[in-house]
Amino acid sequence: MKIIQTVASVALLSTIVLADPLADAAKQNGLQPIPESKAELMKYINKAEDPITDAKVELGKMLYFDPRLSRSNLISCNTCHNLALGGADGVPAAIGHKWTMNPSHLNSPTVYNSVLSEVQFWDGRSPHLEDQAQGPMQAGPEMAAPKDLVVKRVTSIPEYVELFKRAYGEDVEITFERIASVIGVFERTLVTPSRFDDFLNGHDNALTDAEKEGLQLFLDKGCAACHNGMALGGTMQPFQVAAQYSFVNLGGFKGDENGMVKTPTLRNVTETAPYFHNGAFWKLTDAIKEMGSTQLGISISDDEAESIATFLGSLEGRKPQIVYPVLPASTDKTPVPTFD
Amino acid sequence: MKIIQTVASVALLSTIVLADPLADAAKQNGLQPIPESKAELMKYINKAEDPITDAKVELGKMLYFDPRLSRSNLISCNTCHNLALGGADGVPAAIGHKWTMNPSHLNSPTVYNSVLSEVQFWDGRSPHLEDQAQGPMQAGPEMAAPKDLVVKRVTSIPEYVELFKRAYGEDVEITFERIASVIGVFERTLVTPSRFDDFLNGHDNALTDAEKEGLQLFLDKGCAACHNGMALGGTMQPFQVAAQYSFVNLGGFKGDENGMVKTPTLRNVTETAPYFHNGAFWKLTDAIKEMGSTQLGISISDDEAESIATFLGSLEGRKPQIVYPVLPASTDKTPVPTFD
Repeated sequence: MKIIQTVASVALLSTIVLADPLADAAKQNGLQPIPESKAELMKYINKAEDPITDAKVELGKMLYFDPRLSRSNLISCNTCHNLALGGADGVPAAIGHKWTMNPSHLNSPTVYNSVLSEVQFWDGRSPHLEDQAQGPMQAGPEMAAPKDLVVKRVTSIPEYVELFKRAYGEDVEITFERIASVIGVFERTLVTPSRFDDFLNGHDNALTDAEKEGLQLFLDKGCAACHNGMALGGTMQPFQVAAQYSFVNLGGFKGDENGMVKTPTLRNVTETAPYFHNGAFWKLTDAIKEMGSTQLGISISDDEAESIATFLGSLEGRKPQIVYPVLPASTDKTPVPTFD
Repeated sequence: MKIIQTVASVALLSTIVLADPLADAAKQNGLQPIPESKAELMKYINKAEDPITDAKVELGKMLYFDPRLSRSNLISCNTCHNLALGGADGVPAAIGHKWTMNPSHLNSPTVYNSVLSEVQFWDGRSPHLEDQAQGPMQAGPEMAAPKDLVVKRVTSIPEYVELFKRAYGEDVEITFERIASVIGVFERTLVTPSRFDDFLNGHDNALTDAEKEGLQLFLDKGCAACHNGMALGGTMQPFQVAAQYSFVNLGGFKGDENGMVKTPTLRNVTETAPYFHNGAFWKLTDAIKEMGSTQLGISISDDEAESIATFLGSLEGRKPQIVYPVLPASTDKTPVPTFD
């Protein structure tokens, strides 16, 4: 027994010795890799209340892509959180039912890796994805579908009823909350490990020298004060620490009751312009400089911003392959869409 | 040589003798199966001007799903011709840029099997998909993107430029017409053979007895007068032959300059409610009865309509598996969306 412990200690020691010191520095600054092992990852994305199964993921995916969950039949979860476009929509503020812009001019956050966030929504009012998914379906400026309309649409389609039974058992009650929950199960699987994770997981050559320089600068400037953890974000943080944002008048969002705002994940950030809660900045280097002045109270030069952006490119993750679903047909019982 | 010919004749004869007489009757009424052999099918869907290749199909698919081909970044080809929903949108009339309904209240036809139609658009004004695809991108109530905006969006993204080179050679000129054409190449592959085709191709048990009864009724009633060929539709036909449609005032569409209208394909019709050029009917049996009275001048009973609808269910086709694309990110040069 003692011998084995000793061997383990030596192995651990050798890992520490061989790893790039920058990887250690990143971890000491609170950055955390997506685990390489699927079993290890499951500890972060699985939930006892509604465990991930293949049947649920497939059903959740179908509902995620189904625009019949909206009043108009035109808007799905994927409309604003488009899995083809980094999990977001590429517009400054979400546009939904009747071409209505989000009243607070809020930008749609990426759904990729959102399971790794501690809270959901920009003001952090939702604790997890199963709860979050209930919001946009009902919101007037988004999918504008009352709970009972969503339930009637789904339960009017026998194939959906059958898939719920397969996923949750014969006695399943197909409530609005159950529908949102299975969408959340699908969303929990949308994790995208990147070369950055490979680097933190001990593959020293996974990042280029330029990316490593950018990471060093990211740490030196203090970006990891908010952008940390496995999501490189996802926690509530103070808002406008050093100065007012230059775009603060756009939409009038003020964060939660304490003026805190959810730090967005930096994963896949090169794919999710425009930036910030109100999508005011299109250029990543401009966004980096703005964060320096308003959150950190420092000036970040053009060259430094370029270098940090180079590092952020390494957070572009490997997306799960999604087979586009063929959805079951509506029936004569399915409520028809309305557009007003 | 003579011996081989004789053997071939005997084989042909035995096929004729063994085939269900209903399959022959269907063919004599002008119905035509999608060929079982891929080589044979290619004769119908391939084109010398822009031959189908894997590289083009993959690029065309990406563009088909890319909402950045619209002015707002919000509407893709797939928005109105949703491959998850039978290739259509499940609303009476297309709704596009600024939540604008199609001015003539025209229903979005399915993209599946549209390559098998002789003409495109309800008034048949477009000869093929490569031409058709140019329309919705530019149309103000649809994607509302001027040609040069579409070209600038695509050419500002290096990965797209690279994919065009791979598909068309290093010297490719990425024009608006080239973009539409490669989308058309992808659309040409969206053919969905069904059990009906299996039946016409000699698999007598591919249809149930109820479906065969429905097919017999479909032929007896004269539906195949317009719904014929491989598309079971897709040709220009007289409009309101026996009586005015009960919904004719909706949208005011009058067909082409001769009052002719493109007969919609019946393939996957059970998945593409609502029906008719203005999406006025939600129930398939109601649509069948309306066609009897206004186009054929006959009365179709409820039971007969049910039987025909049962046959039409056998036209629900096997969809090609579509891996949802991960699209290349926009760059600082990509024109940003506008919403007015």
